[in-house]
Amino acid sequence: MSRENRANDEIRKTTIELNHLENPDGSAFIETGNTKVLCTVMVEESLPPWINEEEAEQGWLTAEYGMLPGCAEERVRRERRGAKGRTKEIQRLIGRCLRAGIDLKKVGARTFWVDCDVIQADGGTRTASITGAWAALKLTVDKMVEKGILDEDPMKKQVAATSVGVVDGEELLDLCFEDDFAADVDMNVVMDDQGDFIEIQATGEEAVFTREQHDELLNLAEKGIKELIEIQRKAFQ
Amino acid sequence: MSRENRANDEIRKTTIELNHLENPDGSAFIETGNTKVLCTVMVEESLPPWINEEEAEQGWLTAEYGMLPGCAEERVRRERRGAKGRTKEIQRLIGRCLRAGIDLKKVGARTFWVDCDVIQADGGTRTASITGAWAALKLTVDKMVEKGILDEDPMKKQVAATSVGVVDGEELLDLCFEDDFAADVDMNVVMDDQGDFIEIQATGEEAVFTREQHDELLNLAEKGIKELIEIQRKAFQ
Amino acid sequence: MSRENRANDEIRKTTIELNHLENPDGSAFIETGNTKVLCTVMVEESLPPWINEEEAEQGWLTAEYGMLPGCAEERVRRERRGAKGRTKEIQRLIGRCLRAGIDLKKVGARTFWVDCDVIQADGGTRTASITGAWAALKLTVDKMVEKGILDEDPMKKQVAATSVGVVDGEELLDLCFEDDFAADVDMNVVMDDQGDFIEIQATGEEAVFTREQHDELLNLAEKGIKELIEIQRKAFQ
Amino acid sequence: MSRENRANDEIRKTTIELNHLENPDGSAFIETGNTKVLCTVMVEESLPPWINEEEAEQGWLTAEYGMLPGCAEERVRRERRGAKGRTKEIQRLIGRCLRAGIDLKKVGARTFWVDCDVIQADGGTRTASITGAWAALKLTVDKMVEKGILDEDPMKKQVAATSVGVVDGEELLDLCFEDDFAADVDMNVVMDDQGDFIEIQATGEEAVFTREQHDELLNLAEKGIKELIEIQRKAFQ
Amino acid sequence: MSRENRANDEIRKTTIELNHLENPDGSAFIETGNTKVLCTVMVEESLPPWINEEEAEQGWLTAEYGMLPGCAEERVRRERRGAKGRTKEIQRLIGRCLRAGIDLKKVGARTFWVDCDVIQADGGTRTASITGAWAALKLTVDKMVEKGILDEDPMKKQVAATSVGVVDGEELLDLCFEDDFAADVDMNVVMDDQGDFIEIQATGEEAVFTREQHDELLNLAEKGIKELIEIQRKAFQ
Amino acid sequence: MSRENRANDEIRKTTIELNHLENPDGSAFIETGNTKVLCTVMVEESLPPWINEEEAEQGWLTAEYGMLPGCAEERVRRERRGAKGRTKEIQRLIGRCLRAGIDLKKVGARTFWVDCDVIQADGGTRTASITGAWAALKLTVDKMVEKGILDEDPMKKQVAATSVGVVDGEELLDLCFEDDFAADVDMNVVMDDQGDFIEIQATGEEAVFTREQHDELLNLAEKGIKELIEIQRKAFQ
Repeated sequence: MSRENRANDEIRKTTIELNHLENPDGSAFIETGNTKVLCTVMVEESLPPWINEEEAEQGWLTAEYGMLPGCAEERVRRERRGAKGRTKEIQRLIGRCLRAGIDLKKVGARTFWVDCDVIQADGGTRTASITGAWAALKLTVDKMVEKGILDEDPMKKQVAATSVGVVDGEELLDLCFEDDFAADVDMNVVMDDQGDFIEIQATGEEAVFTREQHDELLNLAEKGIKELIEIQRKAFQ
Repeated sequence: MSRENRANDEIRKTTIELNHLENPDGSAFIETGNTKVLCTVMVEESLPPWINEEEAEQGWLTAEYGMLPGCAEERVRRERRGAKGRTKEIQRLIGRCLRAGIDLKKVGARTFWVDCDVIQADGGTRTASITGAWAALKLTVDKMVEKGILDEDPMKKQVAATSVGVVDGEELLDLCFEDDFAADVDMNVVMDDQGDFIEIQATGEEAVFTREQHDELLNLAEKGIKELIEIQRKAFQ
Repeated sequence: MSRENRANDEIRKTTIELNHLENPDGSAFIETGNTKVLCTVMVEESLPPWINEEEAEQGWLTAEYGMLPGCAEERVRRERRGAKGRTKEIQRLIGRCLRAGIDLKKVGARTFWVDCDVIQADGGTRTASITGAWAALKLTVDKMVEKGILDEDPMKKQVAATSVGVVDGEELLDLCFEDDFAADVDMNVVMDDQGDFIEIQATGEEAVFTREQHDELLNLAEKGIKELIEIQRKAFQ
Repeated sequence: MSRENRANDEIRKTTIELNHLENPDGSAFIETGNTKVLCTVMVEESLPPWINEEEAEQGWLTAEYGMLPGCAEERVRRERRGAKGRTKEIQRLIGRCLRAGIDLKKVGARTFWVDCDVIQADGGTRTASITGAWAALKLTVDKMVEKGILDEDPMKKQVAATSVGVVDGEELLDLCFEDDFAADVDMNVVMDDQGDFIEIQATGEEAVFTREQHDELLNLAEKGIKELIEIQRKAFQ
Repeated sequence: MSRENRANDEIRKTTIELNHLENPDGSAFIETGNTKVLCTVMVEESLPPWINEEEAEQGWLTAEYGMLPGCAEERVRRERRGAKGRTKEIQRLIGRCLRAGIDLKKVGARTFWVDCDVIQADGGTRTASITGAWAALKLTVDKMVEKGILDEDPMKKQVAATSVGVVDGEELLDLCFEDDFAADVDMNVVMDDQGDFIEIQATGEEAVFTREQHDELLNLAEKGIKELIEIQRKAFQ
Repeated sequence: MSRENRANDEIRKTTIELNHLENPDGSAFIETGNTKVLCTVMVEESLPPWINEEEAEQGWLTAEYGMLPGCAEERVRRERRGAKGRTKEIQRLIGRCLRAGIDLKKVGARTFWVDCDVIQADGGTRTASITGAWAALKLTVDKMVEKGILDEDPMKKQVAATSVGVVDGEELLDLCFEDDFAADVDMNVVMDDQGDFIEIQATGEEAVFTREQHDELLNLAEKGIKELIEIQRKAFQ
């Protein structure tokens, strides 16, 4: 899908459906334009083997990301010989960002498994994964608090993300695949509901960008993420 | 979901939604009770490297199967260190059964990539994959014929599948997860729209079964598959 | 080797040599026509790591299958990058069938490692593996009972297997490689000494078969397996 | 090594030794404080298999990164079961940044293999790799131009990198390991000799940072990189 | 099996059975005491991909080595996650030694696949593999000459091998497993029928040995290999 | 580098720099002509998982070997899909030889990790690794004794190694890459400071050698290793 008549500072229509699946502890299905990601959270009552006793005063959260073979125009090969570099980068990013939103000292010796699977890809799958996974995590934690499994709410803040970029010399908010493909500069921004930053990843894609462009892109990202934070909030009402 | 008040010879409510995704050449989303499988077909204009020139008078069809981590009660690990034995068995089964339904001599030097991804699992995922993937394949081929990519319709027959089994001494049609877990005998049956058999896989699951039980199970499977064939047909009307 | 003047309902000459090797706890060398499989059983005094304490009231039996590189006309590559799908299917089949023949609750916290290695292949290697491995297992268990390692004989039943198929419209018993290659329908059947079924795997190999053909194939298999059961019995006299 | 009496806006003593090794086409040994990285470039007269003919109007550049087992306080395991996520991220980063500095359309159908191996690690190994690898690349290209292998100089710009971060509420330039370990915010910045940006990667390390902190960190990075650009320049005089 | 009443300078009873299997181009089954190795040779009418055109004036020979799981007292795990270091060492040794015995310039653009599979292990499996594989190779080549596939006999010399060692201060010829286990020094020697050496591998197994011991071990090896050369010769009469 | 005007029985200029790196427990940088190897030792306060309790009365020592991609004229690929056969052979050799030099019963339940990384390769990297790694090990152990971590000095003997070979009919000591490439016979010899042998590996590289040649090669090796032992000794003065 092309940008069509969307304004440069406009995000795509975004919806978050909670409880999309029966089995996970929490699940959210996020659609941003044509991008669709299924986010699930499953809680394991143990810690990964590499966490030793000293650290055992807190829980852990780990994220995985995948693309269904039919999600894109060209078939995406299953990563059965190990995850690709891009996949590992995205997984690490999702994990770091969600850990910024939760106080793992309050969850006990548990592991939160977050899975983001792209059902349909049209740009921005990693940022949609973060925005949707936060909702699935919040849902999981709310249920645990309600059932008395957790004494205290460990959620610290909302976490949401979007992409911005420079295409044909113009700064654009929320890149679809066509935008992304044409972009000279591509930036992923993750923020919280206080307006603070969690991650900024800006790359010239083998080109460069000025400080002024950089600042304008951050402004756009701030605007878009503020709207996504509001969409998350409404999904829980 | 338990069997509830479903009769022993009754299949679960089954729906097939065609064109579920935008990008694949054909896609079908099949729901059988709580089991949900997304089936996609993507056509590649070349043959796999292991097919040499002599065989190049025909195309090829290959199938892959996967489970999303959140599809089941316990998280399903991604198979990033190679597919498990069960996965490979299912993939080979789906491929063989679909190849029985299409005349690959009529499709040119092309490869049909069939992907079946389980979104939610409640028993019978491999048989639902076959029934749904046939629909996605049919859809793909119909479009190719319509666009003139294929001169002739290569589809030979409808292919559908179900499972049957013996639970507490009773023969049951279309096992959900709870049935399957309790079954002493488990049988997957694949048939065509002429009432002929494509595959039968019956296992005593470390138990045994008599010839009589075997014959009764085949009767049930014939009944169920006839109904699934009808559901496939209606999806294309 | 072709079928030559063997009748359609005749099995190949089959011999089972017990104690073929010095080191394993039990070993059997089975020859069925030109197919030769070396079956060994080795007992480990522990359980696999994935069996937790609750299940530890019983032992475990696992099977592996391999082909020597020189067993076939074309060299068979060693599976040093992971077992192929076909290998995993066969291993799982052998394991399930043997577990149907032994009461693992009576063997203590032990693992039976069953290995079937094809020295020469001329069709029917998986069914010969089952028939031969049962003999190696029985031998192993007999020695354990004799030495007082086991208080009680855990063997429940004899297990034997053969293949049947439709070649040029005729139903044939015990397919050699040439038969198998030409077969439209191929069925592996595993039974016990009571005449009950443990596994049936029938595949149209991308073709189909009628209920009548299916029933006739089962009749042939029953005849052949009855004879194999007798050959097993004689090997122990 | 701790920060000692280095000012907050001061980089560590940095040296670049060209032609450190005999065999590679170009090599540079960079030392930044206690961090030591050996950067080599080797030119292959062919393109990677995944580049097809259309793209063959240009060359390719790919980077790999490794840590010697003895480079850190705790032994670093060799990555013989595949590169870790962190390694892949760094490799991709180095490759992207160097490609921003060279016009691959002017190098013919060649591949530049860039290798960055950490001999001793004390923070900032990825940014030192970029700064050093640029020098090894420049050296390689200079020799190719001198020998007449290349008609035209493909180098477009200098590329250098440093890290900045927030430690105990203070913004610091060029983090050593001790700083990095204590940092709440960690940012890697890559720039060219025009003062433009190639990459910015800022992460709250599970914390957050304000827009003001972000802007101050960029200021520090600009200062440091300007000095590194000068050190590179001097190495070539 | 212990050394029993075998003299220190005596080899074990050794037999070589040619044409042990139907399918390979050549096969030999060697028994040395209780050690049994099945050696097969299969000829492929192409060269490995890493041999480029310039070298294509000659053929290639490659060897693989494996142990059946039941060959030893403790089950030998299948090497399905890659060959172990020991296996790779042995494979390389067998290949090098056989290539010393054949003039690959006279065999055309062919690959000889040599496979040595240990059916039963009682020490000396690598040296028995060499001695037996030479016979399988000779047999293969003889048939090719006879059929006119090769114009000229490429076999240059006989190749045979044995092990020697120091056990309890005594130099012994042809170590069985028990000897080998107790040996302070272990030496594998490969020679030709002219009495020249192809390989010597002597290891103190974390101990040391004097020049005098070394010389005496070589004397024993020369005696033993002379006898093995004779046994090979007789197998072809 | 060619042999130049070095005599046939002359070793290359060899230096050993102790404490080359800050982080490992011991490190030595050995240069032999143009060959440069960085040897490090790191001590882990535990034993590998495969050592069971009975053996736990002693420590363990394990060695790894690697080549930097830029160490040779042609780029050396990183072994990220598993170590090659040659690598594994060398690693096992280094480990065995060093274990001959230390009494592991005196080091407690510790593992010595020895890493030899080739920075520049010009022949003899495996023998230089042994000679250099011994120095790194000695350094490590000396520090442990000094700090009172070890009560008793576990070092039993010095261990050093060199290569010899036959090139154009002449026996040569200490082969550089050019010699090695041209050699008909190649022999690696490892000895201690008493003049006893730890390992001898002689290979005809698909050629053969006489007993006389063999004896002369050993004489050369003895001469060279005596000199290397002296160089090691001086490094510790």
